[in-house]
This record gives sequence, structure tokens and C-alpha cells, in this order.
Amino acid sequence: MQKVYFDHNATTAIDKKVLSVMMPYLETQQGNPTSQHSFGRHARTAIEEAREQVALAIHAHPSEVIFTSGGTEANNMIVHGAAIKNPQSTLVRSNIEHPCVARPMEALTHQGWHQDLLKVNHDGVIPDEAYKSITADNISLVSVMLANNETGVIQEVSRLSDFAKGKKAISHTDAVQAFGKMEVRFDELEIDAMTLSSHKIYGPQGVGALILNKRSDIEPLIYGGGQEKNLRSGTENIAAIVGFGKACELISESLKESSMRSRELQTTLEFHLKTLGAEIFSEKVKRLSNTTFFAFKDIEGSTLLTALDKKGFAIASGSACSSVNKEPSHVLLAMGIDEDLARGALRISFGNQNTINDVTSFIETLKKELQTLKQLTAIAA
Amino acid sequence: MQKVYFDHNATTAIDKKVLSVMMPYLETQQGNPTSQHSFGRHARTAIEEAREQVALAIHAHPSEVIFTSGGTEANNMIVHGAAIKNPQSTLVRSNIEHPCVARPMEALTHQGWHQDLLKVNHDGVIPDEAYKSITADNISLVSVMLANNETGVIQEVSRLSDFAKGKKAISHTDAVQAFGKMEVRFDELEIDAMTLSSHKIYGPQGVGALILNKRSDIEPLIYGGGQEKNLRSGTENIAAIVGFGKACELISESLKESSMRSRELQTTLEFHLKTLGAEIFSEKVKRLSNTTFFAFKDIEGSTLLTALDKKGFAIASGSACSSVNKEPSHVLLAMGIDEDLARGALRISFGNQNTINDVTSFIETLKKELQTLKQLTAIAA
Ligand SMILES: Cc1ncc(COP(=O)(O)O)c(C=O)c1O
Ligand SMILES: Cc1ncc(COP(=O)(O)O)c(C=O)c1O
Repeated sequence: MQKVYFDHNATTAIDKKVLSVMMPYLETQQGNPTSQHSFGRHARTAIEEAREQVALAIHAHPSEVIFTSGGTEANNMIVHGAAIKNPQSTLVRSNIEHPCVARPMEALTHQGWHQDLLKVNHDGVIPDEAYKSITADNISLVSVMLANNETGVIQEVSRLSDFAKGKKAISHTDAVQAFGKMEVRFDELEIDAMTLSSHKIYGPQGVGALILNKRSDIEPLIYGGGQEKNLRSGTENIAAIVGFGKACELISESLKESSMRSRELQTTLEFHLKTLGAEIFSEKVKRLSNTTFFAFKDIEGSTLLTALDKKGFAIASGSACSSVNKEPSHVLLAMGIDEDLARGALRISFGNQNTINDVTSFIETLKKELQTLKQLTAIAA
Repeated sequence: MQKVYFDHNATTAIDKKVLSVMMPYLETQQGNPTSQHSFGRHARTAIEEAREQVALAIHAHPSEVIFTSGGTEANNMIVHGAAIKNPQSTLVRSNIEHPCVARPMEALTHQGWHQDLLKVNHDGVIPDEAYKSITADNISLVSVMLANNETGVIQEVSRLSDFAKGKKAISHTDAVQAFGKMEVRFDELEIDAMTLSSHKIYGPQGVGALILNKRSDIEPLIYGGGQEKNLRSGTENIAAIVGFGKACELISESLKESSMRSRELQTTLEFHLKTLGAEIFSEKVKRLSNTTFFAFKDIEGSTLLTALDKKGFAIASGSACSSVNKEPSHVLLAMGIDEDLARGALRISFGNQNTINDVTSFIETLKKELQTLKQLTAIAA
């Protein structure tokens, strides 16, 4: 059975061109980049080249790129790093942030910090009033994601920037899902910090970056040998860093074309989903071109997911990069979506390999599965 | 020029057999291990198999293995994780720990925690009296490395275990350098936590583990999607984890043979070094079979290192997995070695590929370089 992978917001396959630049670093003796001998110097050069590739892709300065082990670490790093510099301060985030922003903040509330939430509206967008409702004064960090991993909704980050400036707080955006799917320019967003992850853009797992401008003074999360200008210690993951650099280069080159292609798939998919009676979450607002989050009333998401998986279609239910819990999506609940409908939520996220044929054969299969499920429900009732 | 790599304590090349089990995970679409579809389940299985391989190699239970991005993160995790559970407590470590144990502890001293040091003797060994000198009562963590990365000195960890038990503290050993070079049994060491790193044992960079028994309750360092039983969130680095598992398996199989071989190289090397007038640090005490830390009086380490590098021999000066600082080794200073001699310190650390020919040709080259350097010094004087 030919399998169709529709879960690119969870993780992507490494691009062949990325893997080929990684191979020499996996196949031959590398030096530790902090070593003084020729092996070490060679490794150091490779890392600095990758740093330039990452910087170029998002219009940042190479010195603003701090390599981490992934998006989760980068998010924890900015939350923890800004908080520690400012004991007892308030951390502000939206109520639809990924758990790797939300949970480190919650953990800090048990250690003397405060947390305030920017609440999204029914469409999953943070309205201007949300910012006005924040009255805290001593704010160290404001974090709002650029694009949501479940709905794909894109936030107006300039609002975040203005607000944080007014509060003299560090502004941060989690761009893990936005990067590679829309233009992301660190220089124009006017924010202080941004998170990227390699395995969402056809790069290897195990690497990501925190982009941090020089004005922002944070404490490290991981201390040690002093790598990454003392901000992130640990022997560098050379092959992965080199691959991440290449993935950044490739994604920038193909961005226009790939987002046009996925927009076409999305339009076709959503047309058919609606015909079949699905509700599409955040349908009317600015969303990523590859992400569709939907539900059928009275049909349990994970039941449908399992049925489709058996037919060779890999899709996600609720948040796929989160733990194995069975709670309805916290994003949908934050949007005020009915709990029952939220339990039906399924996500399709397209990637470079997907074709219009994948979409049409998916729709065919979905039709049949819906019929079967409805018959079963009718019998049970 | 054929290059000879003598810096395996800094990093090792990936074993070909390790890389071959990693390749399928780099070449084809993988799922996110938390995803429910078949791609995700397949990834989950691969990770659990690797967890068993790691556990088997060190005689731990698979449920005690927490994958991290490397040794540095694992060390930070236990230090931070034990500390947060116990505000204002005292953290105890030896004064020769790697910076990724020492620096997170130091950072915590600015946040209300205390730090006490176990001081090594002239040989780099922690004497029993060192433990007796610790009078603090509210101790949350005691961390003593199993083998030192610079001198190779092996500590008596049973002493650590007894002391920590008496204080009801978590006992931890950084086994990054010991693992793969001597038998390391988590079940027999009677300690609570242990750090491992993959890239020191012919596995890939970007992965390591904290081994943690069930009695020990720590806070996560990195929060998010809830991976690794909520103790270490972040999308798993599947290929690297699979490679780490395989590296653990291979290293266990070959341990006896490889340590005998490196002991032979070490004996030959040290005989010749002494003939040439070198002082070998910690010569008389229990050391790793692959590590020789030495100095020639009146010869600057990094000058000799550069000269040897030009002739194709990659060796380290002081700690090679640490930052680019020019200070003499903190380990040698802790041992009370004269600062001038310490500045001459060079480290050779053998690995699987090294042969007796490498050693003899190294000695030949060293002789010539020493002569040249001595002539230069004579002219300058
Ligand atoms: C919005 C968002 N932020 C952060 C992350 C975490 O990144 P990583 O998987 O690299 O740890 C993810 C996905 O896992 C995500 O979707
Ligand atoms: C004793 C010791 N502990 C910890 C580390 C750090 O491990 P990693 O390189 O995996 O971050 C090293 C070497 O870098 C080491 O020698």
C-alpha cells in the first residue's frame, strides 16, 4: 500500500539535498568544534557557514543565531532565560501557545513568577483588546506564536512588538510552524527573539535555533563549556547544524512556489471537506497555506484517524507534537469551540511531496469511511 | 598527509555499523513518535528499542533511561532538576567536575542555593576526608564524575553513594568519559543518576541520556509536549537515538578487547613520553586506559599542539570539550599542579582506530618538534 503522509506540521522527511550535505559529517572523523587542531577548526567553519545560511533565510545577523537542540529547547530557553534575569516578574503569552512555551511559564509560577494570558477570539486570533487587558507592569517577556500548529492561524506580530516595547519587555515569537511556509523576516518583525526548528522544514531532527537580538540579555538554560557565546553549552551537533543550514537555504529558494502549490491543495481539500459537512476551524482568517483543521459533528477524531490510517493516510488529531493525552485540543477550547466538536478535530498539513492526486484519493477514502462510521453509529443508536 | 586523530575524549567518529542503522531514519519519511498514525507508531517502536539497548549496556532498567540532547543537557538537567525540588538547598560536587556540572551549580548560587566542593588531592583523586569536610545538612544533590575527561582518573563512586545516602541527597555521576572505556554498571554503583553521551562512544552527536532511578524526583529542565514521561519534552531525535542505542550495543561487545588494546598503546606512549622528559599527570592512580595527560616543563602546550597538528597529529590541550579560553586546566589547578607546568598540558586520548604505528610515528615526530622548540627557546634566551 502506497502511504500518503499528511502530517508535515508534526515532522517532515529530510530533503535529499540536505542529507547529502550532512553525509560527510556523519561518515568521517569530525573534530569537536572547540578543539584547536585541524579537525576542530574544520568543524567550526562548517558551523559558522550554517549559521550564515540560517541568518540569511530569516534576514537576521549570523551573530543573532543561537543553535539549540530544537524548537522546544529554544522556547524554554527564552522563557527561562528572560525570567531568571527578572525575578518575580510577569510572563505574558497567548492562550494558544505550544506547551513548550506554556509549561515552562507555568512551572515558573511555582517559583515566584507571574503569568498573564492574551486570549484569542473565536477565530483563534488575538484581538487588540487582549493586549489592553494586560495590566501587569513588571513584564519580562511577551511570547506570541507567529502561526499556530493546529489551526495554522497567523498572528499580527507587530501588535506584540508594540506592546512589548511599551512594557520594556522582551518580545518573542515561536515561528516553528510559520518558518518555511510563509515569509519570515526577523528584521521586519521588530521583535527581540524568535524560535525555529529544523525538522519542520525538511531538515534533520535534533536542531533548532533561538534568534536573539543583541539588546536582549538572557540567562542560559544550559551551562557548560561555553559554546554559542556562552548562551548554549554542549558539544555542537555538527551534521544536524549543517543540515539545518542547508534546509534553510532550500526552503527560502522554493518558498513562493511551494506555498502556492499547497494553497491549491488546501482549497481543493477544504471545498470537499465542506461538501461532506465538515466544519473548518478558523476558516475565515489568515492561515498557513498547508494547514487545515476540521471536524465532523458526532464523529470522534481518533476513530476516523485510525480508519484513515488503515487505508494509508497519515493525519493528526488535535496537536500531534504534543503528548499522548486524550483531552480535546487546548487551542480549540481557548477559541470557545464546543467540547464535543473539538473531540472530532483532525488536522491535515501538506508538505512538498503531496500532490493533487493525494488529495482526491483522500477525499474518496474519507467519503467511504464516513459512510461506514455513520452506519455503525446508526446501528449502535 | 595521513592524519592521526588522538582526541577521542573530545569526540569520536560515528561507527559505520551505527550509521547504517541510522540511515533508514534519515532517508525516509519518519513520523513524530507522539503521532497516532503508523509513521508515528513506527518511530515510537524504534525509540523504545534504543532505550533497551542503552539500558542493557549499563545494566539499568529501560524505564530509567531519559534521552537528552547530550551529556551537557543531562548534567544540567540533574543539577537544575534536583535543585528546583529543594529550594535553598546545598549542591555538592567535586572541584574537577566538567563545566556542565560546575556552571549550572554556580548559576544557582545566585538564586538562593549553596554549593560545597569535594576537593581532590595531588593525584586528582577525591580522598575520604573530602566527604568528611562537608558539613551542610540540607543537601539535594551530590555529583562526582566517574572518570575525568582530562586526566582520565577514575573515582571511587561507592564513597559518593554512601555519603549521599547518609544525607538523603540524590547521588549523580557524570559517566560521559567512563562509559565505553571501562565497565559501567548502574545497578552496582548504587547511585541515583548517571549521565551518558553518545558522541564519545562512536554514536552520533546530539543525543545522550540521563539515567535516573525511580526514587529520585526531579523537575524537568525542558518542558513541553510531555515526551520522555514528561521529564524531557521536545520532538525526539529519532535517527540519533537509534544510533546511540546501536553504539551502546557495540561498545559493550567490544569493551574488553578495546580497552586492552588502548592500554597497550598507553603503556608504550607513556614510556616514551617519560623518556623524553614529560611529566604524566595522575600517573600512579587508577585511570582510563585511553587517556594520557602530560606536560613538558618550559614548553607551552598550545605551541606544541600547533606544531604537531601541522604534522598531522590531532591532540588536545587541557580540556578540549570546553571553551576557547586560554586559562590553564582547572583540573590541574585543583590538583595543586604548578601553573607554569599546567600551561604545558597536553592530552592524548586513544580510540578504536588508533594503532601502535600511530604511537611510534607520533613519538618520532614529537622528538623532532621538541628539538626544534628547544632550539628556538635557546635562541630566544
Ligand atoms: C508551534 C510549535 N512550537 C514548538 C514546537 C517544538 O519544536 P521541536 O519539535 O523542534 O521541539 C512545535 C512542534 O513540535 C510547534 O508546533
Ligand atoms: C566529563 C564530561 N561530561 C560532560 C561532557 C559533555 O557532554 P556533551 O559533549 O555530550 O555535551 C563532556 C564532554 O564534552 C565530558 O567530558
